[in-house]
Order: sequence, then structure tokens, then C-alpha cells
Amino acid sequence: MVVLGIDPGLAHTGWGVVETRGSICRARAYGCVTTHADEPIDVRLGRIYSELRSVIEKYGPTELAIESIYFGENTKSAIATAQARGAAIVACSTAGLSVGEYTPMQIKQAVVGTGAADKYQVIYMVRTILGLDHDPRPDHAADALAAAVCHANVTRTQSLGQARRSIA
Amino acid sequence: MVVLGIDPGLAHTGWGVVETRGSICRARAYGCVTTHADEPIDVRLGRIYSELRSVIEKYGPTELAIESIYFGENTKSAIATAQARGAAIVACSTAGLSVGEYTPMQIKQAVVGTGAADKYQVIYMVRTILGLDHDPRPDHAADALAAAVCHANVTRTQSLGQARRSIA
Repeated sequence: MVVLGIDPGLAHTGWGVVETRGSICRARAYGCVTTHADEPIDVRLGRIYSELRSVIEKYGPTELAIESIYFGENTKSAIATAQARGAAIVACSTAGLSVGEYTPMQIKQAVVGTGAADKYQVIYMVRTILGLDHDPRPDHAADALAAAVCHANVTRTQSLGQARRSIA
Repeated sequence: MVVLGIDPGLAHTGWGVVETRGSICRARAYGCVTTHADEPIDVRLGRIYSELRSVIEKYGPTELAIESIYFGENTKSAIATAQARGAAIVACSTAGLSVGEYTPMQIKQAVVGTGAADKYQVIYMVRTILGLDHDPRPDHAADALAAAVCHANVTRTQSLGQARRSIA
């Protein structure tokens, strides 16, 4: 299974492609789409869409793992992120990827083992799980890889559960 | 000039295509993309994108007029609208349309003459300005037509201003 993880944001949309074979996860590639506040909104969202379409075409993921939006106090920031999230999901939806949504807490729980993990613990565990010889950067790309690892774990656990029910 | 007006929303995205010749505005078509709360987010956003792409292909607008998002108390609702807005803008951006953004108050001011107009006044004036023999419905489509009329007025006023400066 090849999973595209996305950490959406209008200024920085992190992405990471993870391939799984059994319980082994490896990173195919990761990066970040960057847009600038002085560009028009259609240029910014259009770039997020087109760069993610290029990533999908190049690395062939079949599933998307994406963070749900945190309803914090900063509504303006959440709305900007939501627009980027819409552009990112359309890029994946029109390419036929199926979508898994996870809260930041679910992702931390799956990768570090606790929903209260800080970003350094997430980066360290993403590096360890994916067998990288360096910290994945920037943070948005690490968060995207973490979402992909979370989705791979959840999918594998569900498959094992179904297999056990079939045997029983 | 052919303008596509959009009133974005995750459940209902209104659209309206307006053609202008001088100070005359006429509606080419209008409608609403509807999605359901029990559908996955990728299906909902994918449909908004693909139906708007079909509208653009069929009616050939070159400009988009879209409502900016109202920062009200309901953050959850604003975030859902923002995702739909992202999908709608990507549909227009990837088709090469230029984008004009207007607040609800700017649109009411342009169509009714006061930013405090209610929705019935907006519907009445959209019907009158576009020479329709019926009220445009649903409300989302009427609001989309109002955004397109607002953009046509603003663009025409700017053109007249430029022409006057050239003569002076």
C-alpha cells in the first residue's frame, strides 16, 4: 500500500508518501508546498492543487491520510487552513484516492504512543519508524509522514482484525 | 464579459453565470451543487469541483466573483464553507479564470444600494437587474448571481474611471 499523508496549510502544505509491506513502513518522498501571503488566493490554492497532483502522478499513492482541522481560538487561521484542505482533498479525490481523516491526537497516539506527544517526539518516531538517517524536515512534512504512518497502522490493524474474525 | 458568481457552501454551492454588454447584465444560467452530510468529505468536495468545471466548460466565463467568508460565531460552519470555497476556487483557478472577492456587504451595496439589505431585497433586485421573469432560486443561486452582478458593476466602474483618466 502506498499512502500520501498531507498536513494542510495555506502557507505550508506538508506532504509525505509512505510505502508499507506488512509491518514495515518506508518513505518514498516528502516535501512541502509553499505559498506567499502576497499572492492572490486562486494562485495559492491552484499551486497546492497542482503540486499535489504532480506528487500523486510521480509516486502513485492510492490512499490519502489527512489531519482534521483543529477548532482552536484563531478562526481566521482555521479558515485559511480549511481552504487549503479543500484544495488538497480535491487534488486527491479527482485522482481517485480514498481518504482517511485523523485528529492530531490520533496521529500522535499512533506514532508516539501518546496523544500528548510534542513535535520533537513525533519527528524522532517518524524518523525511527521509517528508517531514515536524518530528521524529516520541515515540520509540516514530518507531520504529513506521521499522518501516513498513522493511516498505515490503522489499516493494518483493521486487516488483522478482519483476518482473525475470518479464522474464528 | 462573462462572469461566474459563486456562493460557496459544503451542502449548497450556488452558482450563476452573467453576461454583460455595456451596462446591460443578463443571466446565462444558474443553479446549485448539493451534497449530503452523510457522504465522505472527498466525495462532497470532488462533486463541487467537477460540477463547477462542467459549468465553466459549458458557459465559458472568464472571471470569477466569489463571496468572502463571514467570520461569525459558528466556527464549525465557517470551516465547512471554507473547504467548499477552496474546492470552488481550484475549479476556477485551474480553468484560468481571474478571481474577484467581495464581502456580503459589498455585494448587497452593489445590487440593492445598501449593505443592510435583506435576502428578499437581493432576490428582487437580481431579478430586476437581470431582466428575469421569475425570482432566481434557490437562495444560494440568487446570491451567486448577485456576486456576479457586483463584479460586473465594479469592473465596469473601474473601466470607466480608467477611460476618464485617459481623456483628462
